[in-house]
Amino acid sequence: MRIETEDRPDRPQEECGVFGIYGHPQAAPLTYYGLVALQHRGQEAAGIATTDGTKMYSHKALGLLTDVFKHGELEGLVGHAAIGHVRYSTAGANTPQNAQPITMSTHARNIAIGHNGNLVNAKWLRIRLEQEGSLFQTTTDTEVIAHLIAKAGVDDLAEAVATAAQQIQGGFSVVILGNDELVAVRDPLGLRPMVLGHLGQAYVVASESCALDTIGAEFIRDVEPGELIRIDAHGLESSRFATRRARKMCTFEHVYFARPDSDVDGWNVHAVRKHLGKILAQRYPADGDIVIGVPDSSVSAAAGYAEASGLPLETGLIKNRYIARTFIQPSQELRDTGVRLKLNAVRSIVEGKRVVLIDDSIVRGTTSRRIVRLLRSAGALEVHVRISSPPYVSPCHYGIDTATEAQLIASNHSVDEICEVIEADTLSFLTVDDLMAGFGFDKGDAVPFCNACFTRNYPTTLIDQSLREPHHELVHVGGSTNGSV
Amino acid sequence: MRIETEDRPDRPQEECGVFGIYGHPQAAPLTYYGLVALQHRGQEAAGIATTDGTKMYSHKALGLLTDVFKHGELEGLVGHAAIGHVRYSTAGANTPQNAQPITMSTHARNIAIGHNGNLVNAKWLRIRLEQEGSLFQTTTDTEVIAHLIAKAGVDDLAEAVATAAQQIQGGFSVVILGNDELVAVRDPLGLRPMVLGHLGQAYVVASESCALDTIGAEFIRDVEPGELIRIDAHGLESSRFATRRARKMCTFEHVYFARPDSDVDGWNVHAVRKHLGKILAQRYPADGDIVIGVPDSSVSAAAGYAEASGLPLETGLIKNRYIARTFIQPSQELRDTGVRLKLNAVRSIVEGKRVVLIDDSIVRGTTSRRIVRLLRSAGALEVHVRISSPPYVSPCHYGIDTATEAQLIASNHSVDEICEVIEADTLSFLTVDDLMAGFGFDKGDAVPFCNACFTRNYPTTLIDQSLREPHHELVHVGGSTNGSV
Amino acid sequence: MRIETEDRPDRPQEECGVFGIYGHPQAAPLTYYGLVALQHRGQEAAGIATTDGTKMYSHKALGLLTDVFKHGELEGLVGHAAIGHVRYSTAGANTPQNAQPITMSTHARNIAIGHNGNLVNAKWLRIRLEQEGSLFQTTTDTEVIAHLIAKAGVDDLAEAVATAAQQIQGGFSVVILGNDELVAVRDPLGLRPMVLGHLGQAYVVASESCALDTIGAEFIRDVEPGELIRIDAHGLESSRFATRRARKMCTFEHVYFARPDSDVDGWNVHAVRKHLGKILAQRYPADGDIVIGVPDSSVSAAAGYAEASGLPLETGLIKNRYIARTFIQPSQELRDTGVRLKLNAVRSIVEGKRVVLIDDSIVRGTTSRRIVRLLRSAGALEVHVRISSPPYVSPCHYGIDTATEAQLIASNHSVDEICEVIEADTLSFLTVDDLMAGFGFDKGDAVPFCNACFTRNYPTTLIDQSLREPHHELVHVGGSTNGSV
Amino acid sequence: MRIETEDRPDRPQEECGVFGIYGHPQAAPLTYYGLVALQHRGQEAAGIATTDGTKMYSHKALGLLTDVFKHGELEGLVGHAAIGHVRYSTAGANTPQNAQPITMSTHARNIAIGHNGNLVNAKWLRIRLEQEGSLFQTTTDTEVIAHLIAKAGVDDLAEAVATAAQQIQGGFSVVILGNDELVAVRDPLGLRPMVLGHLGQAYVVASESCALDTIGAEFIRDVEPGELIRIDAHGLESSRFATRRARKMCTFEHVYFARPDSDVDGWNVHAVRKHLGKILAQRYPADGDIVIGVPDSSVSAAAGYAEASGLPLETGLIKNRYIARTFIQPSQELRDTGVRLKLNAVRSIVEGKRVVLIDDSIVRGTTSRRIVRLLRSAGALEVHVRISSPPYVSPCHYGIDTATEAQLIASNHSVDEICEVIEADTLSFLTVDDLMAGFGFDKGDAVPFCNACFTRNYPTTLIDQSLREPHHELVHVGGSTNGSV
Repeated sequence: MRIETEDRPDRPQEECGVFGIYGHPQAAPLTYYGLVALQHRGQEAAGIATTDGTKMYSHKALGLLTDVFKHGELEGLVGHAAIGHVRYSTAGANTPQNAQPITMSTHARNIAIGHNGNLVNAKWLRIRLEQEGSLFQTTTDTEVIAHLIAKAGVDDLAEAVATAAQQIQGGFSVVILGNDELVAVRDPLGLRPMVLGHLGQAYVVASESCALDTIGAEFIRDVEPGELIRIDAHGLESSRFATRRARKMCTFEHVYFARPDSDVDGWNVHAVRKHLGKILAQRYPADGDIVIGVPDSSVSAAAGYAEASGLPLETGLIKNRYIARTFIQPSQELRDTGVRLKLNAVRSIVEGKRVVLIDDSIVRGTTSRRIVRLLRSAGALEVHVRISSPPYVSPCHYGIDTATEAQLIASNHSVDEICEVIEADTLSFLTVDDLMAGFGFDKGDAVPFCNACFTRNYPTTLIDQSLREPHHELVHVGGSTNGSV
Repeated sequence: MRIETEDRPDRPQEECGVFGIYGHPQAAPLTYYGLVALQHRGQEAAGIATTDGTKMYSHKALGLLTDVFKHGELEGLVGHAAIGHVRYSTAGANTPQNAQPITMSTHARNIAIGHNGNLVNAKWLRIRLEQEGSLFQTTTDTEVIAHLIAKAGVDDLAEAVATAAQQIQGGFSVVILGNDELVAVRDPLGLRPMVLGHLGQAYVVASESCALDTIGAEFIRDVEPGELIRIDAHGLESSRFATRRARKMCTFEHVYFARPDSDVDGWNVHAVRKHLGKILAQRYPADGDIVIGVPDSSVSAAAGYAEASGLPLETGLIKNRYIARTFIQPSQELRDTGVRLKLNAVRSIVEGKRVVLIDDSIVRGTTSRRIVRLLRSAGALEVHVRISSPPYVSPCHYGIDTATEAQLIASNHSVDEICEVIEADTLSFLTVDDLMAGFGFDKGDAVPFCNACFTRNYPTTLIDQSLREPHHELVHVGGSTNGSV
Repeated sequence: MRIETEDRPDRPQEECGVFGIYGHPQAAPLTYYGLVALQHRGQEAAGIATTDGTKMYSHKALGLLTDVFKHGELEGLVGHAAIGHVRYSTAGANTPQNAQPITMSTHARNIAIGHNGNLVNAKWLRIRLEQEGSLFQTTTDTEVIAHLIAKAGVDDLAEAVATAAQQIQGGFSVVILGNDELVAVRDPLGLRPMVLGHLGQAYVVASESCALDTIGAEFIRDVEPGELIRIDAHGLESSRFATRRARKMCTFEHVYFARPDSDVDGWNVHAVRKHLGKILAQRYPADGDIVIGVPDSSVSAAAGYAEASGLPLETGLIKNRYIARTFIQPSQELRDTGVRLKLNAVRSIVEGKRVVLIDDSIVRGTTSRRIVRLLRSAGALEVHVRISSPPYVSPCHYGIDTATEAQLIASNHSVDEICEVIEADTLSFLTVDDLMAGFGFDKGDAVPFCNACFTRNYPTTLIDQSLREPHHELVHVGGSTNGSV
Repeated sequence: MRIETEDRPDRPQEECGVFGIYGHPQAAPLTYYGLVALQHRGQEAAGIATTDGTKMYSHKALGLLTDVFKHGELEGLVGHAAIGHVRYSTAGANTPQNAQPITMSTHARNIAIGHNGNLVNAKWLRIRLEQEGSLFQTTTDTEVIAHLIAKAGVDDLAEAVATAAQQIQGGFSVVILGNDELVAVRDPLGLRPMVLGHLGQAYVVASESCALDTIGAEFIRDVEPGELIRIDAHGLESSRFATRRARKMCTFEHVYFARPDSDVDGWNVHAVRKHLGKILAQRYPADGDIVIGVPDSSVSAAAGYAEASGLPLETGLIKNRYIARTFIQPSQELRDTGVRLKLNAVRSIVEGKRVVLIDDSIVRGTTSRRIVRLLRSAGALEVHVRISSPPYVSPCHYGIDTATEAQLIASNHSVDEICEVIEADTLSFLTVDDLMAGFGFDKGDAVPFCNACFTRNYPTTLIDQSLREPHHELVHVGGSTNGSV
């Protein structure tokens, strides 16, 4: 029996969340709670490493935080500084070995490292490092960064991290724990988010501001692209490992990934989504009776659409909260006879209505078609689909896992063709300019965003793309079920 | 380290959901999916029993459905008829022994039985049965029903169930599987809900209609109060075990428990809630800038309030979806310093605003106060709380687990006092008449509802209330962690 | 992949061990340690129930004791009295529901009950009880005993147990825990063993004396056949529920089951086995160079044989200690190419030697043939098999699980034929008279033993044999892997 | 509650067993069965890696083989070549990270590596490697060897292994799997054992010959000290990485560790032990009535003693087979009142007798004293202890884990003092000359054995002894219970 979530392959997947804290006697529990707030960024593995100044303690395993830390492991993670990580990963590589933080010892110290993002030159660097005699025990980009730190040839951790950060390219928000210091870096383009806060005297870094709120910490500011932050007993010190250049922050964090209560690089996520919904209503009106958002990610945009259009916002689709990763999928036969688990349409709301359906994106089109059919079978007269982002035409190389380009329906179909495939009455997407308007930019403005997934205009070269796949491969068997190595 | 959900003691808890199907080759998987749709009615144990006409197969354990059926157990549940059960239970009795369906053999047959509801004369009946030599291996009401069926002295299962049903009093929706038949009964007052549907030739019964939708079955009608349904190879047969009398359906199913996409006894749950929100806006207006519903149960009412008041509906509170039962709670020290896991307020929405906060009920008041404080700390200028039901003053005895009367804040505080306790600026509840208006009834109408939790006017005598607690008690140790017996 | 021990179907299996203690503040841990000493009597499920005088606490699950009590369950089993049980059971019925002690409440009290043995009229009694309206939730004989106790119609537990004991027939050693008393009974023929001891002021009963040794208790005496012992705050009281008659103690306890360090009914097990080995050497000499016993059960007999014959005793067969129940069996293909896990022959000992191989019994013959082949492939010139018991011709009905009569090689083959089947050079068994000589009896003496498995001469009628199998059957699915219900 | 085996700290512990096979379609299952035969060499972790010529597959975790491979992992380990490992390790380092085989990718290939033994210059090499920028993710010697292979600067795996083997010092038997080849090396002194065999066309290497027997493979010869064996599609090739010098094979393999059915470097282990027992009887006779060996390791020596002395060999001590690592230890209070789990003395054998007790070694003396007391409490009149090896005075640095020198009773007590401590009537050890006589050597012969634990005469320098402990340490938390990383 195959076990997976119903529409798993049809959503982009964030690849991780990171958290770090220095200077608090309860560093490990606070990291745990911070990671809980970031769990939406990765549900397949989790881990925490701490230090008491001499020894480094760690625990990580496959599963949600509640699974990974259920046998009292938190109590063993002593110390006043900690980093933590939640991980999403593709099925093949979902092994405990790839869980993070990765811990290791170098001649100068222990280090633990956690990484959100994806490097575009990891393969290239790995080949070079392997030729120099480095051994790789995982298949993560993160281990590449670790080797670069170890080989930096300097004793100072922050300096070594800076040296490593100058060699890697792509999207990265990295937290590193040393013997008695915490270092954090964000990639020069700001592709992946990272914020800085404080909880009393303790400093905190995290992928999103909701993690600060959850532990009662106060937001200080976003970590700057190209910035390196070092926190130790002497306080916080900021430096740059890269010169300042135009930012290229990921718009998809706002469209889909980030939690609505987070502020990312100065914009509140819910507010942006609601604004996008309003723009959608203004520019792509639909002759509907009610507005329905696909739960949960499109609820904000739907509220904006309803407000701007004057149409009533209805809860016409109900999401089952209990469909977890380990859910037993219905057989094709049962699917054909109508078993539908994740979403249900409310007949008494939908019946006889012309529905305006708001969603944040269309990846393969299969989920959209299923929802349209669901609404029609519940009696919807018409279904007008409005998407609060532009057509998703090209894969992300900076830390988001989508289908391949061939699988992205918008990469090889017109909007009309997609409309037909998903069986909608009408379909509209935002343009990139519309999307930028959601952040307050006018057409023609230089924008601080990476929109490569909508434009194919990548802000970095894609070095690894030209490299062949490695000729040998390590496969860890059986790890996915019981968390063993 | 104590493991529980943050506000667990401060919400009423439904005590179960039931499901049954007869006449489908995939009876067990369909029951599994039907139960998934009912998982909100009970998250502490689950089980399924099937029959192939001669043998009866069963599996049950503590945990969510995804935990209970993760090792291929479904494949062993062969047969064309099945019943299933999801269970909520109070901590002390949360043992595998009390999981359902209970299976047993009598001289005539195997039977499996699953029950939603609570009997008011279970203790009384148990004493009588024990005196007659019956052995009890669980502490459930359900086992009382089973003994009554076994002792009915008739070979026909439906007749035996009718005999048993005539002896029990209280709220009950029960499904019983025999060697090759499925019997379902609903209590004479209709306190607990039950619907009937079909999937092709197969008949289905379930606690809520969303379970029918989920498996693609069509709704036929609600099971009548006092009705007994028998389904076997000859089709469906309906009879009555009790004379028709005034219905007393549970309003709290609509206010809080049932899924918004369910139709319960002719009313759609979302529609009722939205209607209640509108009434709330009309009769208890507030001088606010925005409307926020407490997720998830008050979202419909908040939408109604916003629509009727003209105020914008905002997603100002975000719920963490990953807080499960096994979550490690923060220490009091960390709580005091601000760790808050389940809900977060969105500062950019709330700041500087006068918030109208919609919630469905107030039990002890502690949760409400926490939310009010959360909103204020995120910058809300004022918080006006509007509750979409009347003050909850008295415990339910028909299948809903709340605090004791002493713990119910409304049982011994005025609305003004509660307002002060929860630190709101203003507070309003609906009256019982308002609540009934939500279903379309005018003041003075005879209503088919039990409102005892709001009125202390119980529709049955409470027989067991006068009995002492049993002098001996069985405690199963260790069951809660690993599902073993 | 099939998981089972290599030669599982080819050994008789004891069906249980019981233990009880009254009057010690550490009743549960002492029961745990006592059961560990009895683990050889049953490795498939284990459980303990305790009482503190008012509440009864219990925990049981599938698995070895170390598996069942690994999460701190022992700590929850408070009280000064306890009973415990280890269980072997046939595969089909190996479900948590059938684990013991069974706990239940009756009108007078809680009771917990654990049983070693097998009743010959359990089916018959069950039919009667079911007709009277009793419900059965397990398929064990033990539940039959429990119902008889509950229906005895007397308030005094010991009296009720006596009433029940008078109705059941077969082999039984039963421990029963009441609210504040411990009752133990042994069947009138003494088919199953039970001993009485004390640890300071506390009284202890157990299936074998090794359990007394393990907890540091002192042996008082064997419990008498037909005796009922009641232990409570007033001390120990003995009575008889059956008149004294000729004992029929199980010889196979001495030949194979019991631990060599136990004294059973006055004979030390190791001493009896060694004596049988000497008799074997005297009456059935073999022209061999060395003596090898099949580990572990035949080591004592082999030592006796060597001593009496003057041949050197050698450790020519080594048993792998790490082959557990969950072991992955080799495929037939691998078996054919020579994979042999449980036993290895030591070439340097065996090569060029004429081996006298001592074993305790031959059930199907497959294991014996495998061992003979193993020795030959290690270079043995000849293999002379000597069995320290008579041919096993007929199944036990009193608590030992063997193959069916058709599968018992000795039931339908002569000794010569068996010798040929197992590929031995010569083969001898003891006669029943030889066996009795091992206990010091002469030919013609009236012996206090049941030898029915060797003689087909059963000491009771076999009532259930004439009953059809029940027409309906309960199957618990999935219990064997995770211990859930 | 503390969980550990009763006498765990009082026995030397072998640190591992290795196995490798090349050229068989069922490489993984055969490795599994081979490792089962080696399970006595390490019970704390196990793992297997395989290759199909391009991909490498692996699985490892904490626990016995039956625990590690219970969820079908074996089926995922495809390929025609495999290595496997069973591991013992000290408590602190018992983490999944330290389980083996370690798998990694280098620029040329994947490699998997498994190691039995201990290096005397591992710390020294690690410091050098860390200074050169190597990262260490485990605390094992094995990872040091892996780095040396990766840094050898040659493409040929066998050459790279030879280069690495020339740099490491101490005891090591190592198996290495490459993309399509298997390499095995044994240390130049032959401190740790390793044998070579074949199964049809497939070659097999293993720590002990019993692993060959178990899978039906034929023994070819011991791997030579200083030999490197490479097996690939072209067959087997042998070379030397070190010049031939005097062998120093570990005598303790024969005295205690190896399985009695193994032949180690030309001697059968059982035969050596029996011979040592005879020498003990001849040179250190005792005025006893019966001979008892401490099970299981001293049974062979006891048989030799009995044969040579003419005294009867009795099974006077019975070992409980069900005391596993996860066993709940009795509290000190219960120990004081007499709870004794692992061994029981058989009163009917021991009572009134003068016992000659044969054991293989005395480490701290606590176990010996417990056994002597056990025998006396069962009625032994006298207990004469005879040890089949010399006093154990100095820790092993080549792969055996004992107490520190200060804890070794013989390092600072005379034989008379030890006799008093263990409360024996008399006590004798073998001398080193006696021990060598067990292998057929006369006094003054140059012997090919390492007896350093008896003589303090180490055959290598102990380089790491002069190094300080590392100033930083990695602690993996929680791994020991659930096998997660």
